Amino acid sequence: MGRTSDARQRLLAAAGDLMHRRGYAAIGVAEICARAEVRKGSFYHFFPSKEALSIAAIDAYWEAQRPEWLAARDRADDPSARLESLIHALIEAQRAYRETTGNLGCMLVNVGIELSDREPSVRARIREILDEQTALVADIVVEIDRDTTLVTARAVLAQLEGALLFAKLHDDPSLLDHVWAQIRRILDAAGDRAGVGTGGDFGTGRSEAG
Amino acid sequence: MGRTSDARQRLLAAAGDLMHRRGYAAIGVAEICARAEVRKGSFYHFFPSKEALSIAAIDAYWEAQRPEWLAARDRADDPSARLESLIHALIEAQRAYRETTGNLGCMLVNVGIELSDREPSVRARIREILDEQTALVADIVVEIDRDTTLVTARAVLAQLEGALLFAKLHDDPSLLDHVWAQIRRILDAAGDRAGVGTGGDFGTGRSEAG
Repeated sequence: MGRTSDARQRLLAAAGDLMHRRGYAAIGVAEICARAEVRKGSFYHFFPSKEALSIAAIDAYWEAQRPEWLAARDRADDPSARLESLIHALIEAQRAYRETTGNLGCMLVNVGIELSDREPSVRARIREILDEQTALVADIVVEIDRDTTLVTARAVLAQLEGALLFAKLHDDPSLLDHVWAQIRRILDAAGDRAGVGTGGDFGTGRSEAG
Repeated sequence: MGRTSDARQRLLAAAGDLMHRRGYAAIGVAEICARAEVRKGSFYHFFPSKEALSIAAIDAYWEAQRPEWLAARDRADDPSARLESLIHALIEAQRAYRETTGNLGCMLVNVGIELSDREPSVRARIREILDEQTALVADIVVEIDRDTTLVTARAVLAQLEGALLFAKLHDDPSLLDHVWAQIRRILDAAGDRAGVGTGGDFGTGRSEAG
């Protein structure tokens, strides 16, 4: 057993890894404690329940990738380039995660879907994070598509999450290779319709004539 | 308890409904039997295991919607109209399912994701069905995009499955309202690139000039 001061951190890491790999229902406090090398009796010193630990692990998962999303929103660059940098960073993180763990996919969506009619507090936290992700993407998309910003932002995330599903189901990260090209198609069409260019290397030239 | 001749059918329906709603790990044979009004002792007369019943329930789920996919592939119509009819039929089925059960989403993807490192035979069957769906969509997409047919077919399904995820997570079928418009953007861009029109009412006029 490690030092107590690390125990909370180890419980968070173990719960996050197990949930990402196997979902919510299939894991229990005993297994999380064993993975974290924390005595089960100590668990409740740190977290009142599996539900509370799960929410903290979900928050830790999001806090780890949130800076990437904020950086993409705040960079001084054209909106397509900012979204491209975000999508590439997320896909690179998936490849790195699979290299080290053999696993793929978005933990938030996987757990949220599994819990569709249970654990309302866990689901609520996941929805809040997905709403924040949608808002961060919308802050970029608004510069391309002023009229239907939220619809387009959701379509961008749907393409990403859908591709992550198939990559995970087939255990094949190459199914992420074309995600950005597909998202660019959606953005180009939105830019065309709005008469706003998607800028930089990514414009097709059509938007300027729109 | 109902007639024995219906028992297999009732077990299939109960397993399909429970899996669609709650996933795989959270349901057990006892609950499936209770829902189906079949004695637990009779269960193993029909299925050797929960795994075997689950595969049969997954097959039944696909057999129920497969004719819609085959009809879309085989209709004498332009490819965009055929894909549109399929997407609309699938979304209408989601709305109807939610009306009767309060539930939303694609059972195949949900269960497949949850089982990412367990129950290999269940996962393998789900992957086979998703591959068949991809091939059926590719048979239509090839008329729009000859060069990267499979990539575009996968993007079409990723857009649909991603939107289904968000609709389920937010329990909001209105998040499916724009799926076809987003898929059409992907197809229009593919058609532009390939110099093949997407035809009918759906072309933007750009493809003819490509």
